[in-house]
Amino acid sequence: MTLFEKIEYLARIEKTKDRMEKAGLEVLVIIDPANINYLTGYDAQSYYVEQAVVLDIDAEEPFWIGRRMDIACARFTTWLSPQNMMGYSEDMVQSRLKHPMSYIAGVMNEKGMGKKVIGVEMDAPHFTPRAYEVLKAGLPEAKFQDARMLVSWVRNIKSPAEISLMKKAGKIVNKVMQAAVDAVQVGVRECDAAAAVMHAQVMGTDEYGGDYASFVPFFCSGEKASAPHLTWTDDPFLDETSTNIELAGCFKRYHCPLSRTIYLGKKPPKKLADTAQWTIDALNAELETIKPGVTCEQVDQAWRKATAHTNVTKESRTGYAMGLGYPPDWGEHTCCLRPGDRTILQPGMTFHVISGIWMEDWGFEISESALVTETGYELFANFPRKLIVKEQTSK
Amino acid sequence: MTLFEKIEYLARIEKTKDRMEKAGLEVLVIIDPANINYLTGYDAQSYYVEQAVVLDIDAEEPFWIGRRMDIACARFTTWLSPQNMMGYSEDMVQSRLKHPMSYIAGVMNEKGMGKKVIGVEMDAPHFTPRAYEVLKAGLPEAKFQDARMLVSWVRNIKSPAEISLMKKAGKIVNKVMQAAVDAVQVGVRECDAAAAVMHAQVMGTDEYGGDYASFVPFFCSGEKASAPHLTWTDDPFLDETSTNIELAGCFKRYHCPLSRTIYLGKKPPKKLADTAQWTIDALNAELETIKPGVTCEQVDQAWRKATAHTNVTKESRTGYAMGLGYPPDWGEHTCCLRPGDRTILQPGMTFHVISGIWMEDWGFEISESALVTETGYELFANFPRKLIVKEQTSK
Repeated sequence: MTLFEKIEYLARIEKTKDRMEKAGLEVLVIIDPANINYLTGYDAQSYYVEQAVVLDIDAEEPFWIGRRMDIACARFTTWLSPQNMMGYSEDMVQSRLKHPMSYIAGVMNEKGMGKKVIGVEMDAPHFTPRAYEVLKAGLPEAKFQDARMLVSWVRNIKSPAEISLMKKAGKIVNKVMQAAVDAVQVGVRECDAAAAVMHAQVMGTDEYGGDYASFVPFFCSGEKASAPHLTWTDDPFLDETSTNIELAGCFKRYHCPLSRTIYLGKKPPKKLADTAQWTIDALNAELETIKPGVTCEQVDQAWRKATAHTNVTKESRTGYAMGLGYPPDWGEHTCCLRPGDRTILQPGMTFHVISGIWMEDWGFEISESALVTETGYELFANFPRKLIVKEQTSK
Repeated sequence: MTLFEKIEYLARIEKTKDRMEKAGLEVLVIIDPANINYLTGYDAQSYYVEQAVVLDIDAEEPFWIGRRMDIACARFTTWLSPQNMMGYSEDMVQSRLKHPMSYIAGVMNEKGMGKKVIGVEMDAPHFTPRAYEVLKAGLPEAKFQDARMLVSWVRNIKSPAEISLMKKAGKIVNKVMQAAVDAVQVGVRECDAAAAVMHAQVMGTDEYGGDYASFVPFFCSGEKASAPHLTWTDDPFLDETSTNIELAGCFKRYHCPLSRTIYLGKKPPKKLADTAQWTIDALNAELETIKPGVTCEQVDQAWRKATAHTNVTKESRTGYAMGLGYPPDWGEHTCCLRPGDRTILQPGMTFHVISGIWMEDWGFEISESALVTETGYELFANFPRKLIVKEQTSK
């Protein structure tokens, strides 16, 4: 019942071990739920309690170690052998006195890892300072080293099997964005539009169901369009206002994010229409530079060059690596399209390329999700790339 | 536009300061998004990047420090004065070289906190070992102390204003569970039922919209009912199988969780029907013990006493404190209904009381969300407390 063939997981393990070897690591403790999923297939909403995947460079198979009741989730979703799934007892769950990391350290000692060089994801979501302290205390003779982003960088280049899942997410996002455009109307509550979007996300298509996205949809309307990370309210959409929408299609934890801006009214104000025009031109220019061999900052530079004639300075990045993810992020935290990032593009990388302008009391947002191909790029979604203007129809 | 009156937030700050004083803390650095929301009102999907609320015991108002573009979100949702909102620059976001905690440490030095006793939430989601190291390096003369769960314990007792929000979440969950019961049918895909649930969650009621719950709904069907934290698939529901459903209504980040089990078919197998009977009896017995003055373990004991005649031993807790939360948890991680937890119940505490039985290849789940009142308890939801049996209707 694993998502991919075992051979796909073994290839990921090999690439991870290559990086471990270069970094001088003998063991890797993986906490980031996306990295755990990537190496084992594990997929459950159980990362609110401690869990880890522990990979010894000399072993073929890693260990999944988590809450005992979640071994059942590991059995259903991972390729691991039952003897490589270990569970801690319930009295360790959210206890004031005990910590599951002491159990994890115990397993590692038992398996002969107690004196090894151990890499830990110092920046992983759900890896806390206390967890780190308990782990170190339980492995006093081990040597710890920062291995943050190690697996994330393996994830950076998607396999053909992964790309085919992201294409399915792309098919889903076409439907999801259409659901958003249909729902946003004068007088409709923001929550009702968000409900329509989440319904479309999870239904997916007739052929395959959708997954929950790592972010719930952003609906930033009117003045709130200046605030990029607010969610919906139950206020109605108003005539002659614009709404920034950022959402994703998701299939088996793989995302295809997409943003558009909708204007409700006869004719958008000149400021908005002009901004839409030059940001879309800039987004197009940026997309056109995407191909193997160029750097992330060169791609970003294309956006900045295309907007040099405006008086807007954009501090924020114009894109980032994305794909596999759990709440609260579909971004992969590896490379960004921004000044200073000299990561060289390679086939199989996937980016959310985003032209977002957030001003004092308004904003405009448009984006695409792109795959770096052998010769250039390909988009995952297929949705009109424009400011969407909806005239009010009688209701 | 804050959710509560300023006076409500000031009361929370005072209670937090009382605990800080008892713990010998002069400053508190708050990372848990639920705790940030609780003290300031801040509500945005921005916790995928570093952000903190810093409270000096001598100051009336804390600082919100986050990504510069999210100051707009703070302006829309918090009661803080603009000069208490500080933002770090974009080049620090998910950078390989820089870390936003160095900016946060810089602000703290500037505001005279550099030599103080600083409490940090050592176990907070999104507080990573690296963040802690950078914070310590930036405040070399400060003294750090573990302040985990400090604000969470203040949250443990809900104010009347909070309870009224949770009652709204209760009204929402009635509709949401009904949507689930309506959607689960033989031949319907699990994803389509999940879509209906999420639609109902976010729409809320005609009077007020809903919020996203910290967990997406759990639909564990057939054999997968043995695995408590799996999400949906696109498999259809099958005749003569049962499905465990766990979900919540959510209003302004306040949750009312609820679980039920649905059996599709004419007559549930005796094993399931019997289990339903004794778990419901046990849940009822447990609920009836809830009142101020008893301990958490006494409440749990009522469940265990009521089930002593069965041959099932349940390792896991029979309830936990819940309320305000962000993904991935609506639980508050303070007290649990389980052996050894001697927290004394007080009016205003809120629990998810859960009778979950997860066996080798099946499971049964039923739960209620309860408020401790002056004299006993009150339920937030109002949904038939039984195994729901749905005979297949022709489609």
